[in-house]
Amino acid sequence: MTIAPVCPAPITQHETVQMAHGAGGRLSQVLMQRVFMPHLHNHFLDLLDDQAKLDLPPGRTAFSTDTYVVSPVFFPGGNIGELAVNGTVNDLAVGGARPLYLSAGFVLEEGFPLADLETIVMSMAAAALKAGVMIVTGDTKVVGKGQCDRIFINTAGVGAIREGVDLSCRNLKPGDSLILSGSVGDHGMAIMTSRQNLSFQSTIKSDSASLNSMIAEVLDAVPGVHAMRDPTRGGVAATLNELAAASSVGIEINETAIPVKPDVRGACELLGIDPLHVANEGKLVLAVASKDADRVLEVMRATEEGRDAVIIGTVVDDHHGMVVMRTAFGSRRIVDLPLGEQLPRIC
Amino acid sequence: MTIAPVCPAPITQHETVQMAHGAGGRLSQVLMQRVFMPHLHNHFLDLLDDQAKLDLPPGRTAFSTDTYVVSPVFFPGGNIGELAVNGTVNDLAVGGARPLYLSAGFVLEEGFPLADLETIVMSMAAAALKAGVMIVTGDTKVVGKGQCDRIFINTAGVGAIREGVDLSCRNLKPGDSLILSGSVGDHGMAIMTSRQNLSFQSTIKSDSASLNSMIAEVLDAVPGVHAMRDPTRGGVAATLNELAAASSVGIEINETAIPVKPDVRGACELLGIDPLHVANEGKLVLAVASKDADRVLEVMRATEEGRDAVIIGTVVDDHHGMVVMRTAFGSRRIVDLPLGEQLPRIC
Repeated sequence: MTIAPVCPAPITQHETVQMAHGAGGRLSQVLMQRVFMPHLHNHFLDLLDDQAKLDLPPGRTAFSTDTYVVSPVFFPGGNIGELAVNGTVNDLAVGGARPLYLSAGFVLEEGFPLADLETIVMSMAAAALKAGVMIVTGDTKVVGKGQCDRIFINTAGVGAIREGVDLSCRNLKPGDSLILSGSVGDHGMAIMTSRQNLSFQSTIKSDSASLNSMIAEVLDAVPGVHAMRDPTRGGVAATLNELAAASSVGIEINETAIPVKPDVRGACELLGIDPLHVANEGKLVLAVASKDADRVLEVMRATEEGRDAVIIGTVVDDHHGMVVMRTAFGSRRIVDLPLGEQLPRIC
Repeated sequence: MTIAPVCPAPITQHETVQMAHGAGGRLSQVLMQRVFMPHLHNHFLDLLDDQAKLDLPPGRTAFSTDTYVVSPVFFPGGNIGELAVNGTVNDLAVGGARPLYLSAGFVLEEGFPLADLETIVMSMAAAALKAGVMIVTGDTKVVGKGQCDRIFINTAGVGAIREGVDLSCRNLKPGDSLILSGSVGDHGMAIMTSRQNLSFQSTIKSDSASLNSMIAEVLDAVPGVHAMRDPTRGGVAATLNELAAASSVGIEINETAIPVKPDVRGACELLGIDPLHVANEGKLVLAVASKDADRVLEVMRATEEGRDAVIIGTVVDDHHGMVVMRTAFGSRRIVDLPLGEQLPRIC
């Protein structure tokens, strides 16, 4: 079927998503023609088969998925569309893979403005282009008014794992240095302040970004990095706890080493939230043998996404499974997993 | 992290999904331990990395995605979980691929009973086992009460495309025979009658099934099949229209050849719906050179999913892009795409 872009009618402000757009009939095709294909079309998607047929490079393949339900859909520094692309790109990249192809599954609420959908799709196209990935297969469902909150997007992705690289949360060794690529809490606090109408007081923007390019440079320089994670939901605290538990090691970090932007810190204090529990969408935590740490730092700092990279702590053969922080006041405290729901629908 | 099954506390009837189950902290881990891992665990998922690392066989890879928003979540003949597995398995299989690995992305509404979630997860595990695929990576989000309708599930999947097979909706040739694997409308009418409280009057059950085993047998016997599609949303009518348009050919079908079960036909008449527009979740439409049609029929009829397979029509070099049906009364009518939303949230 050729429903590649053929000068479709432009989207007008009053048009909204209708139930029929998701029914698999004529109006589903119209939605494809007018909103999705003009921005996303490529030689896979244009075929409109039920599946993309890919020639993956030899070697192991990484496969990952995430559904995005962030609220609000548009937030300072981004929107759900670019978040959905960057998030899955990063989940592939932290496994040592070169992200290649994404799928996109949309759930749309009846009445959602088509112009907003188009903006989101355009952001996805731009984010995919920047990350060097293609969206090759997709699906759209429409549910009635009140049956979902505006728009949810699932992305799954495949990528080619670099040979000679073995990144896993089980690979931490006592003595490893822990490196963080930049300031924490930007994404979560951008969402929270915009949601709480606190945006007047801040210039906090989401850090949503694809990290695959920076990660590739790190692995070019130091293929033997032990583990990488992007500290999203649950923040750096959850990531470090997961690493400590998975590798049966202890982790010690220094509070003063962890970069937190002043307005993020202020918003966290106002809302009573620990910045270490706040989601990031363009940050990297990695563990590497201490002898290689300076080289990794140097490479990261030469990139846009990693220019504020710092060593935040070390892996120790003590208090296994536990993360301990030396505070700014010189005391020590346990950094636990966030228990609960203080930051719902952050991604 | 080892959160493989370690005798987790059984789910009790009064427990429900909480916002904190989706926040990436302690309770997210508890949900994994208690509901997902006991049923889905395997050596990929047990690692709990952000991505699965797969050794795919050489050759081309099929990649597909679908989000399932079916309402009700439990329906005669199945539930959203097995539908989500079978649907993506089938989307891979109709591309000539052996389905291998699935991802699963859940969106859960706060307050959804954990026992229902467990039933759904168990159905997914059973469907995956039956289809010979593994669920290797996943994600769970929780949204507030009223922000989604109970549960949505996205599955994406990868599969290994068989060498020497070239299935595409653009491959139909005039003279081809069109084969349908069995009766139409079962899934959609099972949903509609249960939703409309018409279930008292019918024994209609969803036909939800994985088709990869039958498709493999067909392709073993006749690798040169031209095209396969599973006629889901929009029904057989949408599938045939898409095939006709993509291949720039005409399609002629015989109404009397199309199997419709008596109670499905009755429900369709009652609701004023054309059975050809109703979704199926375990049926196959294929196009094959007429010389090979009998062999394909023979193979299909020897399988459980294809025992009622029939030739429903032929591809013609006339009225390109159009599907024409010879009716039971001997007249001819155009079979169009369904226009709209008569069957919302059918899958």
